[in-house]
Amino acid sequence: MSVVLGSNRYGKAENRVVRVYRDTARHEIRDLNVSTSLRGDFEDAHVAGDQTKVLPTDTQKNTAFAYAKEHGVSSPEDYAIALGTHFLDAAPPATGAQIAVEEYVWDRILVDGEGHDHSFVRRGTETRTAVVTVDGRASEQRVWVVSGFTDLVVLKSTGSEFKGFLKDDYTTLAETDDRIMATSLTARWRYDGTSAERDTDWNVEYEDVKAIMLAAFATTYSRALQQTLYGMGKNVLEAHPEVAEIKFSAPNKHHFVVDLAPFGLENNGEVFIAADRPYGLIEASVSRDDSSESGLAWQSVPGFA
Amino acid sequence: MSVVLGSNRYGKAENRVVRVYRDTARHEIRDLNVSTSLRGDFEDAHVAGDQTKVLPTDTQKNTAFAYAKEHGVSSPEDYAIALGTHFLDAAPPATGAQIAVEEYVWDRILVDGEGHDHSFVRRGTETRTAVVTVDGRASEQRVWVVSGFTDLVVLKSTGSEFKGFLKDDYTTLAETDDRIMATSLTARWRYDGTSAERDTDWNVEYEDVKAIMLAAFATTYSRALQQTLYGMGKNVLEAHPEVAEIKFSAPNKHHFVVDLAPFGLENNGEVFIAADRPYGLIEASVSRDDSSESGLAWQSVPGFA
Amino acid sequence: MSVVLGSNRYGKAENRVVRVYRDTARHEIRDLNVSTSLRGDFEDAHVAGDQTKVLPTDTQKNTAFAYAKEHGVSSPEDYAIALGTHFLDAAPPATGAQIAVEEYVWDRILVDGEGHDHSFVRRGTETRTAVVTVDGRASEQRVWVVSGFTDLVVLKSTGSEFKGFLKDDYTTLAETDDRIMATSLTARWRYDGTSAERDTDWNVEYEDVKAIMLAAFATTYSRALQQTLYGMGKNVLEAHPEVAEIKFSAPNKHHFVVDLAPFGLENNGEVFIAADRPYGLIEASVSRDDSSESGLAWQSVPGFA
Amino acid sequence: MSVVLGSNRYGKAENRVVRVYRDTARHEIRDLNVSTSLRGDFEDAHVAGDQTKVLPTDTQKNTAFAYAKEHGVSSPEDYAIALGTHFLDAAPPATGAQIAVEEYVWDRILVDGEGHDHSFVRRGTETRTAVVTVDGRASEQRVWVVSGFTDLVVLKSTGSEFKGFLKDDYTTLAETDDRIMATSLTARWRYDGTSAERDTDWNVEYEDVKAIMLAAFATTYSRALQQTLYGMGKNVLEAHPEVAEIKFSAPNKHHFVVDLAPFGLENNGEVFIAADRPYGLIEASVSRDDSSESGLAWQSVPGFA
Repeated sequence: MSVVLGSNRYGKAENRVVRVYRDTARHEIRDLNVSTSLRGDFEDAHVAGDQTKVLPTDTQKNTAFAYAKEHGVSSPEDYAIALGTHFLDAAPPATGAQIAVEEYVWDRILVDGEGHDHSFVRRGTETRTAVVTVDGRASEQRVWVVSGFTDLVVLKSTGSEFKGFLKDDYTTLAETDDRIMATSLTARWRYDGTSAERDTDWNVEYEDVKAIMLAAFATTYSRALQQTLYGMGKNVLEAHPEVAEIKFSAPNKHHFVVDLAPFGLENNGEVFIAADRPYGLIEASVSRDDSSESGLAWQSVPGFA
Repeated sequence: MSVVLGSNRYGKAENRVVRVYRDTARHEIRDLNVSTSLRGDFEDAHVAGDQTKVLPTDTQKNTAFAYAKEHGVSSPEDYAIALGTHFLDAAPPATGAQIAVEEYVWDRILVDGEGHDHSFVRRGTETRTAVVTVDGRASEQRVWVVSGFTDLVVLKSTGSEFKGFLKDDYTTLAETDDRIMATSLTARWRYDGTSAERDTDWNVEYEDVKAIMLAAFATTYSRALQQTLYGMGKNVLEAHPEVAEIKFSAPNKHHFVVDLAPFGLENNGEVFIAADRPYGLIEASVSRDDSSESGLAWQSVPGFA
Repeated sequence: MSVVLGSNRYGKAENRVVRVYRDTARHEIRDLNVSTSLRGDFEDAHVAGDQTKVLPTDTQKNTAFAYAKEHGVSSPEDYAIALGTHFLDAAPPATGAQIAVEEYVWDRILVDGEGHDHSFVRRGTETRTAVVTVDGRASEQRVWVVSGFTDLVVLKSTGSEFKGFLKDDYTTLAETDDRIMATSLTARWRYDGTSAERDTDWNVEYEDVKAIMLAAFATTYSRALQQTLYGMGKNVLEAHPEVAEIKFSAPNKHHFVVDLAPFGLENNGEVFIAADRPYGLIEASVSRDDSSESGLAWQSVPGFA
Repeated sequence: MSVVLGSNRYGKAENRVVRVYRDTARHEIRDLNVSTSLRGDFEDAHVAGDQTKVLPTDTQKNTAFAYAKEHGVSSPEDYAIALGTHFLDAAPPATGAQIAVEEYVWDRILVDGEGHDHSFVRRGTETRTAVVTVDGRASEQRVWVVSGFTDLVVLKSTGSEFKGFLKDDYTTLAETDDRIMATSLTARWRYDGTSAERDTDWNVEYEDVKAIMLAAFATTYSRALQQTLYGMGKNVLEAHPEVAEIKFSAPNKHHFVVDLAPFGLENNGEVFIAADRPYGLIEASVSRDDSSESGLAWQSVPGFA
């Protein structure tokens, strides 16, 4: 028997890069959490502790900050593509790089009804995400872009049922025609193709995909969270041909009707207890049948079926 | 020497009460985290394990849910006053009650530009808070109301300096004319008086106090976070005579300018690293000189100087 | 009406100070989270933004690290006393200082049954705490020491009942002769007196107080969590005359018996669901009747009734 | 174009199952967090909202609790195998099941030097994990077992260097002969084979694998975290032929030497600041060259390269 090194990667996680654009009095701000990693021929580092081929994680950190200036941050996706392709130039032993970005959105503070020039309040709803995976060099280079968000918390106070399900000896759940449905949604969508050069407006795409998903959540009469997710994904795929595939992870945040009968009170879906654990967890993906292969796009992307 | 029981209280913490108003097709939702506690003559329970005078925390929980229906939740403050005064009726051994409420705000999901009737997305910025303390019964009863919020994250990308400070042998900090100032603000304001009956519109008050604070944060040229907080508080006190006192707790969330010189890049306040720890922590209170005594209003309220 | 500055303080929170003693091959490690704050005459900073009297929080940070070397860390208490008294010398406008320390304990990694010289594994049970409050200077100086721990998670699988409690219209809880009792205990004890010079072995004290509390928790037949806490405190006060007062905060981490009858199974206290929220919350203090006044010892100490 | 349902699964996450063995006065306790999920033919649920083939997550929850009694919890692995194979019997539309278990360890409270019969204190170091994946039925059934732990926090105060690394234009890191190396280690090891019937003593295995890893961490002079991980894995594979493969995820928890020179103090590796973010992140796997294929063993296992 001999011991074999398997898949491995290394990088610098959670660089908190804040980029302020201050060319005019009206500042813009991009607030990012950037994780970079490299894959490649790093066997010497593992087996012998030889760092000759290892570009330090500290250098990756420096580059993440320098690129916020050198390249700028017009969007998480654009910045991540620039950073990822750079690392394959900078580190010849690397065969691939992955850049995972979270973005936190800031709104302008309203003063007399107008957004202030340089004062902001954090929006605090979902976190926007982008995961860019780069593999190979020159004409062999492929770049996958996965956009998305985490923790978009949505709730329907009606328009959701759950019934007709499979039963076994351990089934006690009552069927219901009307329940609260709530989830803290993570969605990630892969853009078709593997080119580093794209003329996509990532920010416009992001807002539009999110708006379609929210509207589908709102207007779908839900017979299951699975069905709602499928509908959300379908609507996006139909409206955005450049989106190849979408993955959802949706904890079913249970809201249980509280029994108020002991106190002589009716409770027709008016008072609920929001439960923490356990929670249902639904994971699903939808794609267009004519989309390109996903390749390495989903490798190491957290939390997907 | 003999052992003496000192201050004590007990209750049920973090009841996740969700109240849906569904009298019309256009639902309303109030999403609360409710903690209740009682003080009083509970020595027997401590010294002898005798529960005769102890209204169980489970009962407190039941009441918190039942009151969301019986009394309703027009505001966290109104609901907390009702619940707190109820407990002094329900539990004769209690001499006082405190009800602490957090509220999470939901916005309607936009569908074709209109807010949906029963589908919501959680706003996710600050958490609104109310702490109501009730002491005594009948004509002796006093009710203190402290409204507020936690975790309102704000940032100024300029208009903030820090210089002219005291120096000692351990001082290495450089003075600065221009820095990012950011904080995750907790503010709590005590309303004047101790009456259980008030004709305050708590929701309007809340939005207005928050708006004044945000505007003051935005428009104050800041020579110190202390000065900014003081200005925010002063503006509220001047506009709202019913507010007696305000307490702030403001972590100074440091954003350090990254040194890009080693890479041949200028950094004129454009690229920052957002640091986690340590952080400055500024706590301050302001009050009107003619306000009533605070009494028990701040007892057990978390996180204040 | 005029606006008045009330209580205030400022400092640097959560300095993660790690001190390694490496004078011999057998290293020692102290791993601390240190928060410092100053009170005093800081009105100019608040009202006018004038920093003349403000020793920066950055300087406080530097001092916390420097003192880990200059003074050393024989215990959190000893280190905090040194740091707190220093700040009153360094910052003449300050009238008081508070140093709050958390300590994380590391055990030596076992290699062939022996503890390794310089390799450690974090123990991960409770966090040890010390809060030292210093007020005034020279002969007027008073120093309060509050030791303690947070998050010591303990559980009894029997030997706990809950019955005979007060009932009202909202009471549905069944009485029980046998339940799981579990809590994540925070305890803090104030040492008698206000001298800066003490010949206490803080580390020995800490271990002994904790051991007494644990043994009392284990061996007390519990009729209420209140009674258990009281017994734990009483045993410490009787064994340690230098301890003046003890405060407990104990969330009652509910473990509910799962109803297995629908599946034809008996459940005689064998299968439980550990619930997250809501939880009971019991806060209590015990003191010796002949102890000194607590003065400022508990000011701004988090989480106590 | 048509929309296609891709990979999907659903289940109940984070069932907090506590199992007490109380057949004698000396109780035993197993404290678990159990997540179950099913894969299979669930297209109707997604596309049409038809639940006919869906065994509810509520039923999965019931079963997790019932099995703690019916089957018992001799180890997380044994319990998870029983639960996973059960679900393929209970839910004919399912083609596979995954059971992920976390276990929290409790020690007996010491009273007069003896462990108490029914009073426990939570150990609080690492969390033990087991992920069991079951695919197919009858003679086609395959069962993969991955044991492991998360968050084992270890530190070496010397015996670690980092030098000789690759440099580019963004490299500023100084080489070092002596640094603190610390990580919060996640390790998972796959057992060889796919049989549901195994005569492994999972608890003994767990303790032995962990002890080997800890000893290797302690005694390896480290030229890189990669090399340390490789050494830890190699030692386990050499001692445990039943282990086929090991995966590590190791955040490099940086401890930076604090510059005390401005204060006239030397700092020869004695005072460090423990940083939060960013952190290095090293992920690596090692396997024996003659091991069986991993199949579905790692599917949906969180956090691995």
